[in-house]
Amino acid sequence: VPLSVQIRRHVERLIADGVLVPEAKLPATRDLARALRLNRATVAVAYDALVAEGWAHAHVGQGTFVANRRAPPPSPPERTPAVPLQWDGALSRAARRLLDEARRRQGTEVTGSPGVISFLGASPDPTLFPTEEFRRALNHVIKREGGALLEYHPVAGYVPLRRHLTAWLGRHGIEAREEEVLVVNGSQQGLDLIARALIDPGDAVLVEEPTYPGALQAFAAAQARLVPVSMGPEGLRVDLLPALVDQHHPKLLYCQPSGHNPTGVSLPPATRLALLEIARRSRLAVVEDGFGAPDEGAGATTPLRALDRHGLVIHLGTLSKILFPGLRVGWMVAPPALVAPILRIKQLADLNTGALLQAAVFRFCQGRRLERQARLIRAEYGRRRAALLSGLERELPSGSTWTVPDENAFSLLVSLPEGLDAVDLLPRALERGVAYAPGIFFFVGGGDGRALRLAYAALPVPRIEDGVRRLGEVVREAQRRRRRPAHPVGAGALPVV
Amino acid sequence: VPLSVQIRRHVERLIADGVLVPEAKLPATRDLARALRLNRATVAVAYDALVAEGWAHAHVGQGTFVANRRAPPPSPPERTPAVPLQWDGALSRAARRLLDEARRRQGTEVTGSPGVISFLGASPDPTLFPTEEFRRALNHVIKREGGALLEYHPVAGYVPLRRHLTAWLGRHGIEAREEEVLVVNGSQQGLDLIARALIDPGDAVLVEEPTYPGALQAFAAAQARLVPVSMGPEGLRVDLLPALVDQHHPKLLYCQPSGHNPTGVSLPPATRLALLEIARRSRLAVVEDGFGAPDEGAGATTPLRALDRHGLVIHLGTLSKILFPGLRVGWMVAPPALVAPILRIKQLADLNTGALLQAAVFRFCQGRRLERQARLIRAEYGRRRAALLSGLERELPSGSTWTVPDENAFSLLVSLPEGLDAVDLLPRALERGVAYAPGIFFFVGGGDGRALRLAYAALPVPRIEDGVRRLGEVVREAQRRRRRPAHPVGAGALPVV
Repeated sequence: VPLSVQIRRHVERLIADGVLVPEAKLPATRDLARALRLNRATVAVAYDALVAEGWAHAHVGQGTFVANRRAPPPSPPERTPAVPLQWDGALSRAARRLLDEARRRQGTEVTGSPGVISFLGASPDPTLFPTEEFRRALNHVIKREGGALLEYHPVAGYVPLRRHLTAWLGRHGIEAREEEVLVVNGSQQGLDLIARALIDPGDAVLVEEPTYPGALQAFAAAQARLVPVSMGPEGLRVDLLPALVDQHHPKLLYCQPSGHNPTGVSLPPATRLALLEIARRSRLAVVEDGFGAPDEGAGATTPLRALDRHGLVIHLGTLSKILFPGLRVGWMVAPPALVAPILRIKQLADLNTGALLQAAVFRFCQGRRLERQARLIRAEYGRRRAALLSGLERELPSGSTWTVPDENAFSLLVSLPEGLDAVDLLPRALERGVAYAPGIFFFVGGGDGRALRLAYAALPVPRIEDGVRRLGEVVREAQRRRRRPAHPVGAGALPVV
Repeated sequence: VPLSVQIRRHVERLIADGVLVPEAKLPATRDLARALRLNRATVAVAYDALVAEGWAHAHVGQGTFVANRRAPPPSPPERTPAVPLQWDGALSRAARRLLDEARRRQGTEVTGSPGVISFLGASPDPTLFPTEEFRRALNHVIKREGGALLEYHPVAGYVPLRRHLTAWLGRHGIEAREEEVLVVNGSQQGLDLIARALIDPGDAVLVEEPTYPGALQAFAAAQARLVPVSMGPEGLRVDLLPALVDQHHPKLLYCQPSGHNPTGVSLPPATRLALLEIARRSRLAVVEDGFGAPDEGAGATTPLRALDRHGLVIHLGTLSKILFPGLRVGWMVAPPALVAPILRIKQLADLNTGALLQAAVFRFCQGRRLERQARLIRAEYGRRRAALLSGLERELPSGSTWTVPDENAFSLLVSLPEGLDAVDLLPRALERGVAYAPGIFFFVGGGDGRALRLAYAALPVPRIEDGVRRLGEVVREAQRRRRRPAHPVGAGALPVV
C-alpha cells in the first residue's frame, strides 16, 4: 500500500473516530512530512485525496481543514467525476524545483501595460526592425525553394546559413568548421542543450552573479548545483575562480563576457586571458553566451572562443539582439566531441529548427545587411544608454549606484540606497507609470533586495528621460517615507554587480 | 597583416635578436596599447600568441615575461594538440544513454539519394503543400503586425491561434479551455516537455511496441525505464495493461491511437474506452500522440482526450502531417495542473515558439482551408495506400506479412519471410534503388530483425509501384540466396506489429 494511501486512511480513521473534529486544521504538509520523514509530495497527495473524497477542504494559503459533515462521504466515482490522477504529485523533481523557484518570485513578474514606461525586457526596439527587408527575403526564399524549406530538415541547420555563420564568426576571430556551427532556437535552446548534454543532478555549475535568469533556469532544470561567482566593476571576478573550482569541482562556468545581462559590463581582454588560463589549468568547460551586437573590428569584445586554444569554450550566439528576437534563430559553436551528443538531444527536443526562417535569415544577411543593422542599432542604443546614464545622475538620490554598461549592452543594474527594496517599491513605481525588473530574478539566492535592472534598448530617449524621472520620484518618496537619513555610499564603493 | 600579428612578429624579432632577454617583463598590455594607440585586446591577442608559441610566459596578476629558452620553440599544434578537457568524459548520463542507443543502430540510418525510391521518412508530400497560399498568409501577417510578431512572445503561444485551435479541437470532440491549449515546436517538443515535467530517472513508461522513435528518445533522455506493450492487428493490446501496471507501476502510457507510426493501424472505439477505464483504475496518465490528419466527424478516430472524463489524457497535435512539417508548430492539450510546469519548462527550453509562423498558420486556417487541405491529402494518400497494399500482394513472396494502415496513416510495417533480416537486406535494396527504415528503430529492444517500415505518403503512385517491385526482387533474391525453402507463415498469423 503506497505511503500516501496509508496516511490518507489514517487521517480518515481519525476523522471517523471523532479524534479530528470538524474544522480542525490538519498539520501543514511540510510539518507532517518532516515528522514522518517523508517527501512532502506524498503528504500532499494524501491530503488531495482527502479533499477529493469530502473528508477535508482546503483553502489556498490557509491550509487543509476537516470537513463539517455528518454522513460518510459517498464513493467518489459515482458522485464526482473526480480526477483520479493527482498530476501535481506526479511531477518530476526538476519540474518541482522550477515551480518552487518561481513561487519564490511570485508577484514580482510584472507585465508592461499601455500607460507604463517599461524598462522590463532586455529586448531590442521593434521600431528599428528591418521588417520590410526581411519580408522580401522571406518571399524570395519561399518562391525559390518553399517546398523543400517546409519539409523536415537536418537537425544541424540550413547549410548555407551555417556556412555564412562560419565566415561571419571568422571575421570576429572565431575559427570554426562548418560542422561545429549548429543552429538552435535562440541561445536559450543552446543553453538548455548544453545543460542536458553535460549536467547530471548535483553537478556544480559556476555562474556570474547576477546573471541571466534563463541560464539559471536551464541549469536548474538539469538539477545542477548553482555556485555564484561575484562580479566586480569590470565583470566576473576571475580571481575568485581557483578557490571555487577547488571547493566545488564544477563541470562548467557559464558567463557573458560581453554586454553582460543584467549589468551591461564587459570583461577586459587581459581578464579574458586569465579566465582561459584558469579554465585550462582546472579543466573547466566555459559556456560563453555571446549576447550583444557584434563589435566589428574592435578588440574590446574579442570573444573568449576566439582566444581559446584548448577547446574549452562553447560559444552561443543569437540574432535576438541584432535582428529580431521572434525569429528564434541562434547558433552554437561546439567542441567537436560535443557535436554528436548535442545534435541527438536537439533532435529529441524538437527535430529541427524550422528551415524557412533560417533560409530567410541567410538571404537577409547577403550584402552585409546584418552588419549594417548592427551598426544602426548600436548607434541608437548608444544614445539611449547615454540618456539613461545622465538621467540616473540627475534623478536618483545619493546612495544609489549603478553599473556602467558597455556599448553592446541592453541594460544596467541599479542599486537602491540602503534600506530600500526593489520588490517593495515596484507597486508604487507601477502606479507612477514606470516598470523595472527587480534584482531577485538575477541572483541565485535572491540578492540583497536593493538591485533592479533597467533595460533601455527598446525605449526612445524622451521615454527614458521621463521614466528615470518617475523612478527618481518613487525612490526619493520611499526614502522620505522611511524618515531616516539615507546612508550614502562613498564614491569609491563598488557598484552592485 | 593584422595588427596583432605585426606586434607578435616584432616582439619575436626582439627576442630572437637578444634585445629582449629571458625573463624580461614585457610592457603591460594596457601601456603598450596606449603607446601604440591600439586597442588593448589587439595587444593581448599578440601576447597570447607569444605565450602559446613558447616565446613568453604569463603569470596572472604579474604580467608577461620573455621565456628562458635556447632553441626556437616548437610549433604548438604539433607537440601538444593536447585538449585539456575530455568532453566525452564530461557527458551527462542522459547524453551517454542516447549515444549508446544511437550506436546500436549505427549504419542503418540511411539518407535518400536521387536515384533511390525512398519509403524512408513518414513525411507528407511537398508537392501537395499549399506553399503559395501560405506565402500570402505570411505576407498578410507581416504587413499587419510584423514588428510585434518578431518580438519575444508569451510562451503559451499566439492567442488567436490558441483560440482557433480550441474551437477546431472542439469540433473533434476535445473540450479544452484556451488556457489548456499550448503551442509547441511540433509534437516532438510536446513529448519532450511531458517527459521532463513528469519523469524522474528510473520511472517506468509504457510504450506501444513498435512505436515512434522520437518518443523513445524523449523518454530515454529523461532516463525512463521503457516498458513495451505489444500490439495486435487492431493496435495496442489493452488486455496486457493491467499486469504491466501491477508489475512496473508506470508513470504514464505513451500511445498513438490513430494512424499509428509505424504500423498505420488505429485503435477501435471499444478498445479506446477499455484503455481509459484501465487508466482510470490504475491512475495511469496517458499521452495521446494525435498523429495523422483529422478525420472530420468520423467516430473511428475519436481522440482519447475526447472520451476522457477523468483528466487522464494529455493530447498532442501537429500540423506536420496536414500542412508542413517544416513549420514546427504543434500543440498540447494539457490537464490544468500541468499547464504551469509545462510552460516553465518550455520557457527554459527555448523561450517561445516563434509568433510569426503561428500567426501565418492562424491566417491560413481562416475559411476552413486547413480542413480543405486535410481532405485533399487524405484522398491522395488513400490512393497511395491502396497502390502500396496491392503492390505488396503482387510483389512480396509468401511468408511476408504487413499491417493494414488506417486512412489517416502515413506508413505500414512489413515483416519479411522468416530467416531474412531488414538490416542485412538494406545495402542490396539501396543498390536496387529502393530505401526503407529497418524495424530496429521502432522497437525498444531492437525487434526480431524481420520488420521494416514503408512510408508511402510522399510518393506518387507510379513510384510506389516501381519501388515495391524493386523491393520484391530484393526479397526474393535474398530468399534464393539462402537456398532454403521459405517457411510460409499461416494466413492466421498476426502481422509483426
